[in-house]
Amino acid sequence: MTSTALLTDRYELTMLQAALADGTAHRPSVFELFSRRLTGGRRYGVVAGTSRALDALEQFRFGDAELEWLRESEVVDAPTLDWLADYRFSGSIWGYAEGEVYLPQSPVLVVESTFAEGVLLETLLLSVLNHDSAIASAGARMISAAAGRPCIEMGSRRTHDGAAVAAARAAHVVGFTATSNLEAGRSYGVPTTGTSAHAFTLLHDSEREAFSAQVDALGVGTTLLVDTYDVSEAIRTAIEVAGPGLGAVRIDSGDLVSLARQVRRQLDDLGATQTRIIVTSDLDEHAIAALAAAPVDGYGVGTSLVTGSGVPTCGFVYKLVARAGDDGEMVPVAKASTAKTSVGGRKYAVRRLTDGVARAELVGIGEPPRHDGDDRSLLVPLVADGERVHHGTLADAVAHHRAAMAELPAAAMQLSPGGPVLDTLLT
Amino acid sequence: MTSTALLTDRYELTMLQAALADGTAHRPSVFELFSRRLTGGRRYGVVAGTSRALDALEQFRFGDAELEWLRESEVVDAPTLDWLADYRFSGSIWGYAEGEVYLPQSPVLVVESTFAEGVLLETLLLSVLNHDSAIASAGARMISAAAGRPCIEMGSRRTHDGAAVAAARAAHVVGFTATSNLEAGRSYGVPTTGTSAHAFTLLHDSEREAFSAQVDALGVGTTLLVDTYDVSEAIRTAIEVAGPGLGAVRIDSGDLVSLARQVRRQLDDLGATQTRIIVTSDLDEHAIAALAAAPVDGYGVGTSLVTGSGVPTCGFVYKLVARAGDDGEMVPVAKASTAKTSVGGRKYAVRRLTDGVARAELVGIGEPPRHDGDDRSLLVPLVADGERVHHGTLADAVAHHRAAMAELPAAAMQLSPGGPVLDTLLT
Repeated sequence: MTSTALLTDRYELTMLQAALADGTAHRPSVFELFSRRLTGGRRYGVVAGTSRALDALEQFRFGDAELEWLRESEVVDAPTLDWLADYRFSGSIWGYAEGEVYLPQSPVLVVESTFAEGVLLETLLLSVLNHDSAIASAGARMISAAAGRPCIEMGSRRTHDGAAVAAARAAHVVGFTATSNLEAGRSYGVPTTGTSAHAFTLLHDSEREAFSAQVDALGVGTTLLVDTYDVSEAIRTAIEVAGPGLGAVRIDSGDLVSLARQVRRQLDDLGATQTRIIVTSDLDEHAIAALAAAPVDGYGVGTSLVTGSGVPTCGFVYKLVARAGDDGEMVPVAKASTAKTSVGGRKYAVRRLTDGVARAELVGIGEPPRHDGDDRSLLVPLVADGERVHHGTLADAVAHHRAAMAELPAAAMQLSPGGPVLDTLLT
Repeated sequence: MTSTALLTDRYELTMLQAALADGTAHRPSVFELFSRRLTGGRRYGVVAGTSRALDALEQFRFGDAELEWLRESEVVDAPTLDWLADYRFSGSIWGYAEGEVYLPQSPVLVVESTFAEGVLLETLLLSVLNHDSAIASAGARMISAAAGRPCIEMGSRRTHDGAAVAAARAAHVVGFTATSNLEAGRSYGVPTTGTSAHAFTLLHDSEREAFSAQVDALGVGTTLLVDTYDVSEAIRTAIEVAGPGLGAVRIDSGDLVSLARQVRRQLDDLGATQTRIIVTSDLDEHAIAALAAAPVDGYGVGTSLVTGSGVPTCGFVYKLVARAGDDGEMVPVAKASTAKTSVGGRKYAVRRLTDGVARAELVGIGEPPRHDGDDRSLLVPLVADGERVHHGTLADAVAHHRAAMAELPAAAMQLSPGGPVLDTLLT
């Protein structure tokens, strides 16, 4: 088990040292993870990474190696090192379920603990949630643009090697059926897929030999890549080699709308009426939407998905919103100056539903907002008194996301920039 | 040692299976990692991640756990699993030195091996280089905009937890003096820094108590965060608490140009003429440039740095550019259709220098370009016949980057969008 304890900004440890010294470290505190706005004119965001954050929290231990490095580097003093050696998070965490929709000011995570225990988790929780939710938020728009056609995540090569695995997982939460990334298959059980690249065709002396080799090895159900040389020549060769039962062809360049039509006609003329057409060239949600009327059977999405389609991070922040005074009374706290204002106080959240349609995000400060039977409470217990109580599977997250999306009003599916689809009402 | 072998797109293994079956897997091949263009109107790119890629290559082994998962998941057949069990890269790799400047068509990595051995590395090499070089390319512009003032990387919270560590490393390559990320300190020796957040002030009953606690714990050389409530009130309190020897103040919100001037005046009036001013609010290269005339002593950069300042991935691709036929002769190969054209053939690269100033990128196809004494060869040996021969330190990369930047013509430092600062001449 690798420690995640140093995936932390140094100032969390220096604050800890100063707070241990003056005794404030032990003040009961509430931290909140939320976003002030939806960047890029998005109508909604999607929470992903919750289970991955809880996995990382279980590994957040200062072992001998971590302590020794901190000592040698003189990051903190000896009493702080002693405190870190015993560190186990013993507080409680509530959060939006993985796959849930969020809006500006949604209290996506609420952490109740001492200041010392909660302050250390800032970077770890933000890194996981900011990344995974950025991918999920972009991916959800692609899935709705694809209108039921299957989408495959294939962006590993365009993002950090470790981020690629998390991105494949987050994409699956919002409905991507499979990933190219094998580690995401092993670590998280995401279905994997893939057949061949241009290199395989170029390796062979002819396209025909490449196609024959692939069909021999992988069967006629495979997907042949048909744009290495001339597409219509390749389609002819593909059906000659595999027969009209060929599983699919993939087009990775050119004007996909016109090419898809041309390829569909040619496949049909050759009797390959069941052979599917997969397209994979620099797709984003807008390109997918533009292909809605084209005879395409599936989309492979890479770069734009793993980089959040223009919004590579969610802008989640992690703020102290309440802490006890010397009298033990909890006091709401917030930074006062300028634009980066936060709202102090422990939050509770409810999605207002009328006839099954989401109407507003109600956020209660200090107490749960008043709500009636149709409304849905959004904060679920993740950690209770140090014990992880959330063990939702990836399939649970997929199902939760689908249900949460089904509640949104139709305007949420608009790809054009606009305001949040639901107002957030602080009460 | 964790295996990196499954940080791989599935199609690399299915291609391998098909090529093993028909014997083409063993054809001597050349793969090239390059970028067709510089995205976002950038004048140059910076290579980072080379050493990290070589570390990952050493861990690219299919152990029992990886083989068992591939077997259970039916990704490839039994002969392919047997071949993978023995996999060790036995070929050779040349590449641009870490920290080097690159341009469109620069052969950033050249991999010579059998098809089988080289095709498996596509995703791993691209993930590392695309990510780390995106951060370095953005960071280099920030460093030149900062014109000698120190810059600190502090974006961990806005990117994937593992990517954050690599980002801190890549930022250091291009001149960021320190990072907030502790793991980057431990793993790579990047200097770390950090003092306190708004939470620390809010934890206390007054700003004065917070400042006192911090100065008591960390000394008067520390950096006090002065924008939780009222900035000028905070400055007064800070100097009262720490005295005029206070190390620095940090401003994290508001109009930084006017605030910095106001704070400088106030500090000087209070006799704190050596107290530095650090600013850290949503900075990118343009915001840094806009602060050039303001009395600022250092910049902390987060989100925009770790997300590549609008260009979160470099667009590096990994293409088969040559392979042997049955007669053993190497044949240049390239995809023919449409816009995604590659140039076939093994590449060699030289930077043309006149009077110490870079004038062009010369890329020879099949043989080194003709060049004279002032010119500089760009491809250095990284792996020779399976053996890693490059063991450059992070300090070497920092030094190499500085020297490569010093060669560029002045136009390279323009932040406005434009074409590459050097033409790439294919010869």
